[in-house]
Amino acid sequence: MPNIVEEFNEYRAKMNDKILADNNKIIKRIFNLDTNAYQAGALDVKTKELLGLVASAVLRCDDCIRYHLENSYKAGLSKEEVVEALSIATLVGGTIVIPHLRRAYEYWDALEQQG
Amino acid sequence: MPNIVEEFNEYRAKMNDKILADNNKIIKRIFNLDTNAYQAGALDVKTKELLGLVASAVLRCDDCIRYHLENSYKAGLSKEEVVEALSIATLVGGTIVIPHLRRAYEYWDALEQQG
Amino acid sequence: MPNIVEEFNEYRAKMNDKILADNNKIIKRIFNLDTNAYQAGALDVKTKELLGLVASAVLRCDDCIRYHLENSYKAGLSKEEVVEALSIATLVGGTIVIPHLRRAYEYWDALEQQG
Amino acid sequence: MPNIVEEFNEYRAKMNDKILADNNKIIKRIFNLDTNAYQAGALDVKTKELLGLVASAVLRCDDCIRYHLENSYKAGLSKEEVVEALSIATLVGGTIVIPHLRRAYEYWDALEQQG
Amino acid sequence: MPNIVEEFNEYRAKMNDKILADNNKIIKRIFNLDTNAYQAGALDVKTKELLGLVASAVLRCDDCIRYHLENSYKAGLSKEEVVEALSIATLVGGTIVIPHLRRAYEYWDALEQQG
Amino acid sequence: MPNIVEEFNEYRAKMNDKILADNNKIIKRIFNLDTNAYQAGALDVKTKELLGLVASAVLRCDDCIRYHLENSYKAGLSKEEVVEALSIATLVGGTIVIPHLRRAYEYWDALEQQG
Repeated sequence: MPNIVEEFNEYRAKMNDKILADNNKIIKRIFNLDTNAYQAGALDVKTKELLGLVASAVLRCDDCIRYHLENSYKAGLSKEEVVEALSIATLVGGTIVIPHLRRAYEYWDALEQQG
Repeated sequence: MPNIVEEFNEYRAKMNDKILADNNKIIKRIFNLDTNAYQAGALDVKTKELLGLVASAVLRCDDCIRYHLENSYKAGLSKEEVVEALSIATLVGGTIVIPHLRRAYEYWDALEQQG
Repeated sequence: MPNIVEEFNEYRAKMNDKILADNNKIIKRIFNLDTNAYQAGALDVKTKELLGLVASAVLRCDDCIRYHLENSYKAGLSKEEVVEALSIATLVGGTIVIPHLRRAYEYWDALEQQG
Repeated sequence: MPNIVEEFNEYRAKMNDKILADNNKIIKRIFNLDTNAYQAGALDVKTKELLGLVASAVLRCDDCIRYHLENSYKAGLSKEEVVEALSIATLVGGTIVIPHLRRAYEYWDALEQQG
Repeated sequence: MPNIVEEFNEYRAKMNDKILADNNKIIKRIFNLDTNAYQAGALDVKTKELLGLVASAVLRCDDCIRYHLENSYKAGLSKEEVVEALSIATLVGGTIVIPHLRRAYEYWDALEQQG
Repeated sequence: MPNIVEEFNEYRAKMNDKILADNNKIIKRIFNLDTNAYQAGALDVKTKELLGLVASAVLRCDDCIRYHLENSYKAGLSKEEVVEALSIATLVGGTIVIPHLRRAYEYWDALEQQG
């Protein structure tokens, strides 16, 4: 059985390396901001990861959802907290979010199985 | 040859079961509304399915398109009616809808072959 | 009291004239398609106007909603039918559609008052 | 000087009343869910309001942003917390979020002046 | 007659000042990138402004369209070039772009009148 | 190793044939416009392909990105020019564009290897 967590992370890492090796200054800085924005500040890391998750869900970006699900999992957020955040995303973004909700559930299961 | 209709419906049913078993009240109610909204009222079922299809197409949600294509097929809508609805979606939503139009044609063919 | 129906139609007509006078071939053809797409075919005019309305609502384009509300009104669609179409748009597109729903109700009222 | 907070809330209340008086079951239930979804559960009210705010910001819905800004203000969130949430929205959603950021700042100022 | 170019620029400048005075590091860097990204590089300034204009048009952000129209005008792009770029945006983004096209024409006229 | 360029082009050609054989007048004309819009006019072919690419990227349509990457490659645009256009798309459209950027890099590599 393919491990969807490993598969995603390997492809992501490989292509990010190619993109960053290319030295486009704007893209490199956006990648840099993407790391900094989720560090603790006035809001803690857990809250920020949920914000990133909900933004990704309403914009319906599966890869972005996976990335924030993994970070949420590592930050110690419970499934119940994550699902409650996703319920707000589904309400605000409508039933077109539901297919992404299915894949989010599948990915969270894979994160839990991997431990 | 994989049957894209069966594959989609199996994954959809399996994940919907997981989501609903989770008992998040907001998500359960949205799923419930999603069933009720397409029942006959001031508008008949055929019209409502076409409305769901066009909304899904301009928002470019392949899984949502598949779901409404199958319901449209079962409700007895002809291919010509479905394509005319999709032509409006392509005009309103622009040429970025075209890749979804390709996959919609493929799915409709699969529905017809399955009968 | 400003008449929002007249105001919208005057601005729309004035600017459409400027755009079409400019003779960009692609834009002129898109305008032309926009007229043809809603004429009776496999689907009748009422159904097509509702499809245009729902597409406009989930894509959250107030001017497009106004345009299709007026055409729906002229085609003889009842408020109940229009609202039922908008309820599907709100479910599929989520609560971000609600502000557009408010303005749609206001515009429909203005259409009814104008008769 | 017009008070943008009062103006928004008056229009919102007036049109919501009209919509709910209309008795479309689907729309009424979505309005109902919209109230329930932001109540304390696994996540507290402050976090949920920030989730609603970020979802609204990346989907670029000014009225939704205003609504969640007012609720965030009433829930006791600080400007620094709100701005940090909006900074994530601007990064995830891109520079097209900036015009909405401008109007969000203006609205927050009006909320503070009103007290 | 209100000057829509001045009005837009004054509001934009005033609110940008407030946002930047607030010292959120992520937002400040995004504003900074927004200036750098349109400077000459492998592509010249004119091409980059048209890219910014088309991105703004298909994402239907009126303020972003205005900003890039003014920069396009100052960079010496002709109306014909700008309209040709907008025709691609209207084709790719669909007829929901048309209301933004109307306002773009109005703004370009104001830029020409102002000289 | 599957060739992602060939795979995409074969599926695209096969389904476009089916769609066009279906003789829906609106869809046929949109396909026709899609060919005409990128021909040299006030703007040259290279600029127009970059406009199509950026529009596709901010609207996050992978198939549309692939199509314009191939046309950009054939029109003689350099990787540096293409990446600079994509950097503007990533800035305007936000970090949700990044997953599409990864796949764009992968596709460009495949185009270069195929020569």
